[in-house]
Amino acid sequence: MQWRELPAISLEDSGSPVERSSYLIELHTDDGGSYDVVNDASSPAARECCAQQSSARHNWEMNYQEAAIYLQEGENNDKFFTHPKNAKALAAYLFAHNHLFYLMELSTALLLLLLSLCEAPAVPMLRLGIFVHATLELFALIVVVFELSMKMRWLGFQTFIRHKRTMVKTCVLLVQFIEAIVVLVRQTSHVRITRALRCIFLVDCRYCGAVRRNLRQIFQSLPPFIDILLLLLFFMVIFAILGFYLFSPNHSDPYFNTLENSLVNLFVLLTTSNFPDVMMPSYARNPWSCVFFIVYLSIELYFIMNLLLAVVFDTFNDIEKRKFKSLLLHKRTAIQHAYRLLVTKQRPSGISFKHFEGLLRFYKPRMCARERYLTFKALNQSNTPLVSLKDFYNFYEVVGLKWKAKRNREHWFDDLPRTAFLIFKGINILVKSRVFQYTMYTVVAVNGIWILVETFMLQGGNFFSRNVPWSYIVFLTIYGVELLLKTTGLGPVEYLSSGWNLFDFSVTLFAFLGLMALAFDMEPFYFIVVLRPLQLLRLFKLKKRYRNVLDTMFELFPRMASLGLTLLIFYYCFAIVGMEFFAGVVYPNCCNTSTVADSYRWVNHTVGNKTVVEEGYYYLNNFDNILNSFVTLFELTVVNDWYIIMEGVTSQTTHWSRLYFMIFYIVTMVVMTIIVAFILDAFVFRMNYTRKNQDSEEDNGIVLEKEISKEEVIGVIELYKRISAVPETAQLQKIVLQMDKYGQMSTVFLGRRSRTKSDLSMKMYEEEIQEWYEEHSRKEEAQTPLQEPASAASSSLKPLSLRQRSQTVI
Amino acid sequence: MQWRELPAISLEDSGSPVERSSYLIELHTDDGGSYDVVNDASSPAARECCAQQSSARHNWEMNYQEAAIYLQEGENNDKFFTHPKNAKALAAYLFAHNHLFYLMELSTALLLLLLSLCEAPAVPMLRLGIFVHATLELFALIVVVFELSMKMRWLGFQTFIRHKRTMVKTCVLLVQFIEAIVVLVRQTSHVRITRALRCIFLVDCRYCGAVRRNLRQIFQSLPPFIDILLLLLFFMVIFAILGFYLFSPNHSDPYFNTLENSLVNLFVLLTTSNFPDVMMPSYARNPWSCVFFIVYLSIELYFIMNLLLAVVFDTFNDIEKRKFKSLLLHKRTAIQHAYRLLVTKQRPSGISFKHFEGLLRFYKPRMCARERYLTFKALNQSNTPLVSLKDFYNFYEVVGLKWKAKRNREHWFDDLPRTAFLIFKGINILVKSRVFQYTMYTVVAVNGIWILVETFMLQGGNFFSRNVPWSYIVFLTIYGVELLLKTTGLGPVEYLSSGWNLFDFSVTLFAFLGLMALAFDMEPFYFIVVLRPLQLLRLFKLKKRYRNVLDTMFELFPRMASLGLTLLIFYYCFAIVGMEFFAGVVYPNCCNTSTVADSYRWVNHTVGNKTVVEEGYYYLNNFDNILNSFVTLFELTVVNDWYIIMEGVTSQTTHWSRLYFMIFYIVTMVVMTIIVAFILDAFVFRMNYTRKNQDSEEDNGIVLEKEISKEEVIGVIELYKRISAVPETAQLQKIVLQMDKYGQMSTVFLGRRSRTKSDLSMKMYEEEIQEWYEEHSRKEEAQTPLQEPASAASSSLKPLSLRQRSQTVI
Repeated sequence: MQWRELPAISLEDSGSPVERSSYLIELHTDDGGSYDVVNDASSPAARECCAQQSSARHNWEMNYQEAAIYLQEGENNDKFFTHPKNAKALAAYLFAHNHLFYLMELSTALLLLLLSLCEAPAVPMLRLGIFVHATLELFALIVVVFELSMKMRWLGFQTFIRHKRTMVKTCVLLVQFIEAIVVLVRQTSHVRITRALRCIFLVDCRYCGAVRRNLRQIFQSLPPFIDILLLLLFFMVIFAILGFYLFSPNHSDPYFNTLENSLVNLFVLLTTSNFPDVMMPSYARNPWSCVFFIVYLSIELYFIMNLLLAVVFDTFNDIEKRKFKSLLLHKRTAIQHAYRLLVTKQRPSGISFKHFEGLLRFYKPRMCARERYLTFKALNQSNTPLVSLKDFYNFYEVVGLKWKAKRNREHWFDDLPRTAFLIFKGINILVKSRVFQYTMYTVVAVNGIWILVETFMLQGGNFFSRNVPWSYIVFLTIYGVELLLKTTGLGPVEYLSSGWNLFDFSVTLFAFLGLMALAFDMEPFYFIVVLRPLQLLRLFKLKKRYRNVLDTMFELFPRMASLGLTLLIFYYCFAIVGMEFFAGVVYPNCCNTSTVADSYRWVNHTVGNKTVVEEGYYYLNNFDNILNSFVTLFELTVVNDWYIIMEGVTSQTTHWSRLYFMIFYIVTMVVMTIIVAFILDAFVFRMNYTRKNQDSEEDNGIVLEKEISKEEVIGVIELYKRISAVPETAQLQKIVLQMDKYGQMSTVFLGRRSRTKSDLSMKMYEEEIQEWYEEHSRKEEAQTPLQEPASAASSSLKPLSLRQRSQTVI
Repeated sequence: MQWRELPAISLEDSGSPVERSSYLIELHTDDGGSYDVVNDASSPAARECCAQQSSARHNWEMNYQEAAIYLQEGENNDKFFTHPKNAKALAAYLFAHNHLFYLMELSTALLLLLLSLCEAPAVPMLRLGIFVHATLELFALIVVVFELSMKMRWLGFQTFIRHKRTMVKTCVLLVQFIEAIVVLVRQTSHVRITRALRCIFLVDCRYCGAVRRNLRQIFQSLPPFIDILLLLLFFMVIFAILGFYLFSPNHSDPYFNTLENSLVNLFVLLTTSNFPDVMMPSYARNPWSCVFFIVYLSIELYFIMNLLLAVVFDTFNDIEKRKFKSLLLHKRTAIQHAYRLLVTKQRPSGISFKHFEGLLRFYKPRMCARERYLTFKALNQSNTPLVSLKDFYNFYEVVGLKWKAKRNREHWFDDLPRTAFLIFKGINILVKSRVFQYTMYTVVAVNGIWILVETFMLQGGNFFSRNVPWSYIVFLTIYGVELLLKTTGLGPVEYLSSGWNLFDFSVTLFAFLGLMALAFDMEPFYFIVVLRPLQLLRLFKLKKRYRNVLDTMFELFPRMASLGLTLLIFYYCFAIVGMEFFAGVVYPNCCNTSTVADSYRWVNHTVGNKTVVEEGYYYLNNFDNILNSFVTLFELTVVNDWYIIMEGVTSQTTHWSRLYFMIFYIVTMVVMTIIVAFILDAFVFRMNYTRKNQDSEEDNGIVLEKEISKEEVIGVIELYKRISAVPETAQLQKIVLQMDKYGQMSTVFLGRRSRTKSDLSMKMYEEEIQEWYEEHSRKEEAQTPLQEPASAASSSLKPLSLRQRSQTVI
């Protein structure tokens, strides 16, 4: 979109803020003790007029900082009751809110989690002495204590107690501390199931916000899920009783001889894992007994399980929308809070650039002066030099844009001499032509078929022979030439800006490395050769549906990764519990008395005259260390033949071990159903979106265009020179130089960012959003009776902090 | 809802129709040859005025009939180009459109399908001689020929050729005919795969319309499905090549030693069916090889398979809505056609009762006079004695209502003497009280736990002992008393009108039968005892979500059944093909050379000093007759361990047999995904509906109330006496008698029917429907330029038949 251009923006704005930062007020009260915090609009302003210039600047700095904190809270969906309330809290808040601190948090949590690699039962290569790992643990826990104390300082004791997650963390920390000390003293590890709770340190990390959201969503989806689960279990019990009565008279049927077996086997049948086997003995006796199993599977598997998915999907859908709504309103409130702190008494209708710049200095310290000004320009949609509240509401959408000067030259080679230009122009046209593209697709397809046929002809043997196959060289040469042509024709920057080209480039590079490996006969690199077929993925650029699918996939990738991490956290808990109880329980030939003996057998024995090696590999699916446990748990997640693992462990321990496996099944079922619901929801949403916006432009992310003139830039430079000791105007001066060089009076800048789910939702719920806003402001007005007859734009603003402040001060 | 009452409705209406039945016109042209069918409004009417009374009545009868046919076509979603065009076609149409004919169609189709039970390879007990079953087949085919010739007569040769389904049927019929004769002549059965096509006779039946719709929906969902399937297969091929390079150097790994094995095993892995096994040999060699499998499963199973579901779900959703829309508009057009045939020249603004009654005589011959009048009253919403087109649009919603006089007495025992009344009233209050209900729930719960504990204590042995357990008698007595109380308290009719009570009743009855069986020690009835736990289902009445789920289930049951039937039709095709190729292929110890030998082994052999009976039951999963084939196919549908069946058959035949199994997997995957999508869609729809109408009344189906006065009834009786030779006014006269008895001047009738998916959709898409209607009428107007400036209500009516008729006549 192209926003209107303003004739001139007055950059400066002197005056005092309508509202003052709470830290400042705190300071004043600390100093004088007589500062009145009643909502009297005139008296502080009056007093401030008499204050010194430096004090005024200090005041403003405080306001900027608090506004930036509000905006951060809005962005991170932090509740406002954790907003730092005084200067001391602010110091702790600032200490606890930067990437160094976050990294420390994350690395301590990871250290604690990774310790389980070294604690007994450890991965053989990583085993550490008890003294070593217990000391490491204590060290990590002490760091956590430090982190928590910082948090307490920031939140204050009252809020700290009220904050549930932090309280749980504190309790876990206590338990872990005691246990670590006990281990150190006794010099031996006891059964430490509580290690499973270590995940909470990871979950509480700032960087794992997405995991926390997922967990919350899972817990919110639980009630309807449990309802249907009960229905499922109820039918299971009924069928178990029926099955017991029907099939237990058949003594060759080991699956229904007791009610317990009947229940367990029908539970396993729910996962289809033992399907034809469980039916076979009774089916052999009476063919009509298959009806029992068909009816059971139809009801349980094909009906109730899908019902489960439907219920979760529906709840998920609903929660997603509610979440989006509450986040949107939270951000809006945050923006209102920040706005109140940035407007001046003299001009209550908007924020001047000076104050906006001050805000951004705290909110995004890394942003350069040029970008700050462009952001301000992008926000400002009215004809005034101020950003009004209505404009300021777009803050989060605009602040993420990356700005770049729009190139005047179309190609990178425009400045070259005539001959070179013509050559490159030719290449450029060639590379962009359809013929070239389809030729390359054909080559890729031929290559694909070639690889398939070649592999098919190999049929085992040493295929990593010394001589490199000529076909490989031919195709690689073609790809190399294509890469070269494209790089020269489009310019390296433009070439690599497309994800697909990047993919082509890396695959070709890998293939080249593979060639080197083949040519120099380097064994460890041979696996690169097998990446060759991946080049075929390029063929999927051809069809629109695939591009859509892949785009959606990339868009969803962060969310998928966080769901995967959530699953891993569940895995970790179960792995720890499994290791504590089942480590070393299964081994070759361990389970000869159980029904699954074959899968664990490892013997050479003689049948007739032949030596038969029976190798059942299932003893490998054990809980002997955390890596093995993870693989075993993945196998349990896939659920095929999981009962063999369960029965193996059960035969070596007690019947109650089955509970572990069944609970794990149900937990993964919940998580997996939610993952399925998520994928379903995301794609259906995306497809609806595409259907709704069929006529709109191709999807290239969010793009915004802004033109700024030379005078503006010079004005901004002047401003910076005046307000800051070390002016960071290098970028701005470069723009002026550039303009001078090309003799332009203005430059156009493009702001770009990729489209997020939130953008899509904004467009999908366009109409509803207006309703939400109205409802929200109505509610706020109802909560806080109008005290100040302020300007219309800020009439609905009654920040929470005002009330909280009076609590703390009075 | 309560519609307004009209002061008086003039029942009769003389005059000539605006438009005349096409059959009539046909007759006239046959007679005179000079009848002009140009859309001249005045001339036919003018001529008709001079025609005799009897001819006029005949004319009207024809109009009624054609209107009824239009309405039927609208209801059954028959396209109007199959509308019978002349009197000969009409006769054939009437012959081919009644339940006797439908039943004949169905039974021939079933006979043909069931023949495969008796044809070699037959079910042992049902084997018939070749001569017998070939003769039966010929007979059935001749019946089909007769049916088709009737259809040709009705449709005319032109339309017959254009009707695709009928043409396919004709071709299949031809092939079957030739084959049956060949079998009869050669007296031996050849490979008759074409028998799989017999399903088409069933699909074409009138009663299997739902199956046809399902098949259409499946085919419509195919294109996006195939796109994603290709993506799935593409990744499979890439991973197969990778897997082959990575794992074939390991000679103890039988799964990846050739590219073909690699492909097949990864295909099976897609179904998780061989999961930990396929990984184990490489995992035993190098633990990191599990990454290959985890990545493969994550991409294929957890991502692309869900994507498949998402795409199908989305397409399904879209198709459902479009289907609903087209059906709705089709019905509307049908109503418009019918309306044109029923209005008179003199009163073009509506239909009088006389003509409406005539229509219903053809449309619903079984309906009694009282119901016809009530339907008319229910349709009529205006203050005139005529039903306007706008009112007539509700025809399909109203015509299905079942009418009943609203009872004046609240209970069935109101007329009894005082003492009896008080007793029954007491029982009634007791039965309806919450205490009674919850007591019964408690009893059921206790009974459930009792059964569970009792069964748990049994642990095998002869539990069908001669002495009946006392607990059984106690609980059954309680249930019996409850049943008795409820029947007397509510009255038998009201008691049995609730589905849940009916369920209670039948379960108690079954339990009682079980008791009898136990007491008299009748072996064959013992299975009834095991139905006892089903009584626990009553507990699910307690929670709203379950009631909702069960209601939805019942609502969806017809659709589910048709989906099941669709699946069975696919089964049938595959069963026939399987039997022709694989009958008798697997047997005990058949597959000792394959990798799945164990599952087919059946030997007593000696290991050490012990005799071991190895019993692999998989030889039972064969294609030896059609029943066995169905069970085998069900096992393949569940997909667990299906590769054992596949490998068994493959080892006895050729590698190409795998194609059969893989194609079957993909086909069932399509059907199953659509079933899942259907269940998802239905429940999500229902839940959205419930959420949207939370405040509206409880769901009791559609109820309509109408009051009619004594004068009206007498008027209707008079009318009937005049217009029909054998007046069917017994019901009406009974109403008059009843009114006289109670001294009432009017009676209130209640019309009831259960709510269908269509009703829900009507409410959900309320707003969109108006748009559709407008769009539809705009389109119609654009198609047919206005020729007659008729009344506003019928201005948009340009029936198709008009144009078609002029084609056939001119």
